[in-house]
Amino acid sequence: MSSIFSKIIAGEIPCHKIAEDDSFIAFLDITPIREGHVLVVPKVEVDKIFDVNDDLLAKWLVFAKPVAKAIEKAFPCNRCGISVIGLEVPHAHMHLVPVDSADDLNFTREKLSVSQDDLKETRKKILAHL
Amino acid sequence: MSSIFSKIIAGEIPCHKIAEDDSFIAFLDITPIREGHVLVVPKVEVDKIFDVNDDLLAKWLVFAKPVAKAIEKAFPCNRCGISVIGLEVPHAHMHLVPVDSADDLNFTREKLSVSQDDLKETRKKILAHL
Repeated sequence: MSSIFSKIIAGEIPCHKIAEDDSFIAFLDITPIREGHVLVVPKVEVDKIFDVNDDLLAKWLVFAKPVAKAIEKAFPCNRCGISVIGLEVPHAHMHLVPVDSADDLNFTREKLSVSQDDLKETRKKILAHL
Repeated sequence: MSSIFSKIIAGEIPCHKIAEDDSFIAFLDITPIREGHVLVVPKVEVDKIFDVNDDLLAKWLVFAKPVAKAIEKAFPCNRCGISVIGLEVPHAHMHLVPVDSADDLNFTREKLSVSQDDLKETRKKILAHL
């Protein structure tokens, strides 16, 4: 069965898309840990990041860079942090999150409750800097 | 002033080295969040990961991959996770940590208290799989 991310990539499930190329897609996390929280996902469905082939692995952070820069501008913060855990969806994904303290990347804390309108607004703010 | 990581790279401060090439070094975090916690650091001193140039950024996860695989074998876990926060040392670094739950990448939790002998033992276990 396809992962929820593969369904998003196939256009079967909508997303708040931030960026896309042949190999990757970036879209908003719908249960953000902080406003501006974006997922970067390879289009090929591989469970664990370090099982992704080297060619694709080499492109990942380079693809993420302009997205992270846009997040930093849209949501002023010390910097954009990265987390890769991957225990919930068996399709490798990288979290990009604005951080001002280690707690901003603490995935055990309660997620924000956001509406579709909130997400649309967040997307607009990030795209304005991309 | 050089960062503590630049001093480690220059050999001015010792470390428990796991791997090294022309661009990166990997060594044990001396205040691990979990046993097997490794830092991957570019030799060039840049504060924020997304200010690193694209050529180096492309090599980062590829360099980290065999280290992460060795961590997974030495310290059985669901997978090796990644965190990049970077608020404490102004020299970009990637944390590789064995994870079984999101709390294993929660950097607000108390760090392990380990001795130099513990770190030597941890290093040996990882190197046995590298």
